[in-house]
Amino acid sequence: MPQRPIPTKGEVEGYLRDRRNWGRWGADDQVGAVSLITAEKRVRAASLVRSGRAVSLSREFPKNPAPNNLNPAQHFMRLIDRGSGGGAIDFYGISYHGQATTHLDSLCHVWDHNGMWNGRNPKDEIGFDGARFGAITNWSTGIITRGVLLDVPRFRGEPFVTQEKPIHGWELEDVAQAQGVKLEPGDALVVYGGREPWDRVNPQWGSGSSRPGLHASCLPFIRDSDVALLVWDMMDLSPNGYDLPWSVHGVIFAYGVGLVDNALLEPLAAACAEEGRYEFMLMVLPLVVAGGTGSPLNPIALF
Amino acid sequence: MPQRPIPTKGEVEGYLRDRRNWGRWGADDQVGAVSLITAEKRVRAASLVRSGRAVSLSREFPKNPAPNNLNPAQHFMRLIDRGSGGGAIDFYGISYHGQATTHLDSLCHVWDHNGMWNGRNPKDEIGFDGARFGAITNWSTGIITRGVLLDVPRFRGEPFVTQEKPIHGWELEDVAQAQGVKLEPGDALVVYGGREPWDRVNPQWGSGSSRPGLHASCLPFIRDSDVALLVWDMMDLSPNGYDLPWSVHGVIFAYGVGLVDNALLEPLAAACAEEGRYEFMLMVLPLVVAGGTGSPLNPIALF
Amino acid sequence: MPQRPIPTKGEVEGYLRDRRNWGRWGADDQVGAVSLITAEKRVRAASLVRSGRAVSLSREFPKNPAPNNLNPAQHFMRLIDRGSGGGAIDFYGISYHGQATTHLDSLCHVWDHNGMWNGRNPKDEIGFDGARFGAITNWSTGIITRGVLLDVPRFRGEPFVTQEKPIHGWELEDVAQAQGVKLEPGDALVVYGGREPWDRVNPQWGSGSSRPGLHASCLPFIRDSDVALLVWDMMDLSPNGYDLPWSVHGVIFAYGVGLVDNALLEPLAAACAEEGRYEFMLMVLPLVVAGGTGSPLNPIALF
Amino acid sequence: MPQRPIPTKGEVEGYLRDRRNWGRWGADDQVGAVSLITAEKRVRAASLVRSGRAVSLSREFPKNPAPNNLNPAQHFMRLIDRGSGGGAIDFYGISYHGQATTHLDSLCHVWDHNGMWNGRNPKDEIGFDGARFGAITNWSTGIITRGVLLDVPRFRGEPFVTQEKPIHGWELEDVAQAQGVKLEPGDALVVYGGREPWDRVNPQWGSGSSRPGLHASCLPFIRDSDVALLVWDMMDLSPNGYDLPWSVHGVIFAYGVGLVDNALLEPLAAACAEEGRYEFMLMVLPLVVAGGTGSPLNPIALF
Repeated sequence: MPQRPIPTKGEVEGYLRDRRNWGRWGADDQVGAVSLITAEKRVRAASLVRSGRAVSLSREFPKNPAPNNLNPAQHFMRLIDRGSGGGAIDFYGISYHGQATTHLDSLCHVWDHNGMWNGRNPKDEIGFDGARFGAITNWSTGIITRGVLLDVPRFRGEPFVTQEKPIHGWELEDVAQAQGVKLEPGDALVVYGGREPWDRVNPQWGSGSSRPGLHASCLPFIRDSDVALLVWDMMDLSPNGYDLPWSVHGVIFAYGVGLVDNALLEPLAAACAEEGRYEFMLMVLPLVVAGGTGSPLNPIALF
Repeated sequence: MPQRPIPTKGEVEGYLRDRRNWGRWGADDQVGAVSLITAEKRVRAASLVRSGRAVSLSREFPKNPAPNNLNPAQHFMRLIDRGSGGGAIDFYGISYHGQATTHLDSLCHVWDHNGMWNGRNPKDEIGFDGARFGAITNWSTGIITRGVLLDVPRFRGEPFVTQEKPIHGWELEDVAQAQGVKLEPGDALVVYGGREPWDRVNPQWGSGSSRPGLHASCLPFIRDSDVALLVWDMMDLSPNGYDLPWSVHGVIFAYGVGLVDNALLEPLAAACAEEGRYEFMLMVLPLVVAGGTGSPLNPIALF
Repeated sequence: MPQRPIPTKGEVEGYLRDRRNWGRWGADDQVGAVSLITAEKRVRAASLVRSGRAVSLSREFPKNPAPNNLNPAQHFMRLIDRGSGGGAIDFYGISYHGQATTHLDSLCHVWDHNGMWNGRNPKDEIGFDGARFGAITNWSTGIITRGVLLDVPRFRGEPFVTQEKPIHGWELEDVAQAQGVKLEPGDALVVYGGREPWDRVNPQWGSGSSRPGLHASCLPFIRDSDVALLVWDMMDLSPNGYDLPWSVHGVIFAYGVGLVDNALLEPLAAACAEEGRYEFMLMVLPLVVAGGTGSPLNPIALF
Repeated sequence: MPQRPIPTKGEVEGYLRDRRNWGRWGADDQVGAVSLITAEKRVRAASLVRSGRAVSLSREFPKNPAPNNLNPAQHFMRLIDRGSGGGAIDFYGISYHGQATTHLDSLCHVWDHNGMWNGRNPKDEIGFDGARFGAITNWSTGIITRGVLLDVPRFRGEPFVTQEKPIHGWELEDVAQAQGVKLEPGDALVVYGGREPWDRVNPQWGSGSSRPGLHASCLPFIRDSDVALLVWDMMDLSPNGYDLPWSVHGVIFAYGVGLVDNALLEPLAAACAEEGRYEFMLMVLPLVVAGGTGSPLNPIALF
């Protein structure tokens, strides 16, 4: 592991350019691979519900400063007076991108020199009041589909993925096979890297500029699987080794795949082991923010 | 309509005091009626999914000032530079309580002279850094249950509920019967009052201090139904007519029932009519904010 | 009054174009007319201090929603625990431009089709992280100069300026003459329109889109006086009558003059009357915000 | 140095308790030692202006995360469209207390077991919407007085104060004498510790929990000088060595003295050396925030 040769920079650029989904759902499409989640797909996802166990994939709203949380979320309280009664209200403020908040990235979030999703130019589409193309509101009816967890630490027999041994695409294939699951179009691919065990013995994941995660060699696996969504706790291996602005994050602009960054997956991995299955109904319900580049949220897996 | 006598102030106070659920799930319970949503209940909710149609019950994140939106939500953009590529990120800030944002109220949100949910004293439980009892994190695995829509305008043959003719508890019974649905413990009761049609011909609902909605006479219906959640577009009739700090909002502290305020229900009502059924799988997934008094969110109904 | 013919649109456009100060202090100048405030000018300003009376020209930080305050300022409290002692801290958040906050506009704040101050193009200079030209930090050593108040209501014998009878340039000349003061280069021109008396009998100034204030005919007076700063309570007459994007606000980009908007001038007018003089030492000390388009502040007049 | 014995904990507690100014300006006074700045005092301060040199004592609004800036200030831009013209506006958000922002502390900011300024109880005075006693609005006409800089590094012949060699009260006496200045009632005492030189060779001042600064032995000097304001770049030595919640910060609640924390003093020290004098007119003009515990600001020294 790597059992196969590491791709060259040219090959990785090819993954992002030659295999991209631009135009696949129309030149003006802003939904991307989430289009693969049909009504029928949602029905099948619901049919996976058997035990009724619900598991949250959300970390806590990150109010506390930390080396991986340089712009902490705001939570402020106010009281309301109603004579003999009253109430408490609060303000939430958050710059949710980064390494601290569980959130969904929409298709406008990142780009490379070739452009945004579907070839749009960020100079035209990103304004001071929000994105005009690929905003989170394209997914306002939610992303509800079959989720499939690939538990890399369990496969490796190690507590967590390390900087030296990132997750490669061929390993994801091996994990899926070992778990006896097969990804299908429109699925949500959930990759557990062991972030909580990592945090227990290392500086918090995401502190500083280097961090373990998925190698760019995962791109063909994601593209071949035709998944709609990638959910992960450790994100792109950083540095990505190719001096590319984005490696695995490139699935956003190249394939139209949504990302749930900083998911909390240790409890989900435990639940999968206990339930004896690695598939479940997954619900990812973003806030309806016009022009928004994503959304903090609380994804739920239902078994 | 009212077909029955309007309750006296003493009777309404009795609804909130004599029939309250304090202690029902233990003296220290912070989950309230959401406890009625068992794993089995979630399985039955999922079994309602047949067409796969998903409907959002969320209004747009309220960025624009309006008479019913005096503290508009904040949405600010920033760019990130990654050499040959880049990205767009944003900040969301919101005081979500009030009349503009679709949000869930947690059990610490309101109280009367008798106290908060389960008899707690707000002076002890509400701090500058959040609530210590009844915070939104008690529902972090989400509220996933059967939703039942009661479509009052359709029942009345009128476009929307008016100030003069609020929704009474006995009318909810009549609507349910006419629609052929029966509420069950742990359900989410969704009451459509016609807010969007109202807004098309009136100043926006929630502007000023008087607004049409549910009359305090709905309290016994809610308690008898043993629902876990109340989802509504028009909320408590205001003024409530009894000089009470909270009328129907009192289900929070008295019954332990969660509220989804300012839901967008016109599309749901249309979907119910088209699908020919008034029950569906409902997903209400709050952000995991320690000490939070609720959460903005995007509830989804899945048919 | 008007005693003279109202200027045509072409004349007003000429005020902003033909008499502009671009290049006057260098092609790359970002300080504008504030350059006229030399060290010697500050010494003379200080020499005006005789009684020691200090008057604040700041309204209260606008936390309360109002028709002229659609995006209220935020003020949130937190406690800090220090064992046997403690402390209180707070968060201030503000979108200070608009009609509610006393603030200073920097030279990057507004532009017309000819460009920003000194001919710069806003597309090049305004970024997501601030302005690259004409930001408030160009005035970080403060604007400390001689202030001269022109009290229009007193001159008119009326409590406040009205929509029908805006302030014209020739009236400012007449007021100055009647008060026995003469403006000098680098002065701060302070124009009192009677906003507080207006607010006592009208909807708050700045509610809605029409409001009394200074007519575009004031532009030549401002340019001829060679002032560094304009301080006002009622701002540009609105609508300005010429369908121009900016009328008197154009002194920013045309003349390089700073503006203190929404100043509180009733107490200053009273102090001037009591002190028997209309000149004083004025201190306008903006926050040092890199890239900022202005600053909330508390200007002080010292007699 | 220390040339004299370090005070015991009991002595330090005595400085804060036995010599406090409670009641000195009335039992309900909220102005504190700033009362010592009379109109005549302001006139004398203005009379110090001779060269007209203005020096800012403000650091930059701290937008960038850093170990001494765990909750960075917010600065967000928006554009306004005015047809052929336009404008740029921005939002500023800041939790200004801490080690990053130049700000003024008001008398409600801190307390020990004996209470707040003038003996008030923080439980009664600190609310969710601000402080009811000792708020920053008590100083809304500004703090304009004679400033006196004591340049400790220059006196020591060292670039900056160190953890091992904090500033003691007797050293302040020695510095004043060496500089030939004498503090007078109502003055602003400005103590330069060399924070910028420190930052050039150490981790930024204020990172972590230990930092060089003023020792509690400075309390009698401050009390004896009867100053109205203390302006400093390095603040209280931390840890303070006595396990007290507040050491020199205690001048707020004990003496009614305001603090300007995190002042930028290197340029001021240079200006004093160049001007050949250590006294100047100082202007500290806080924002008018009802209930506020202080204010970010840009203090200006005028020579």
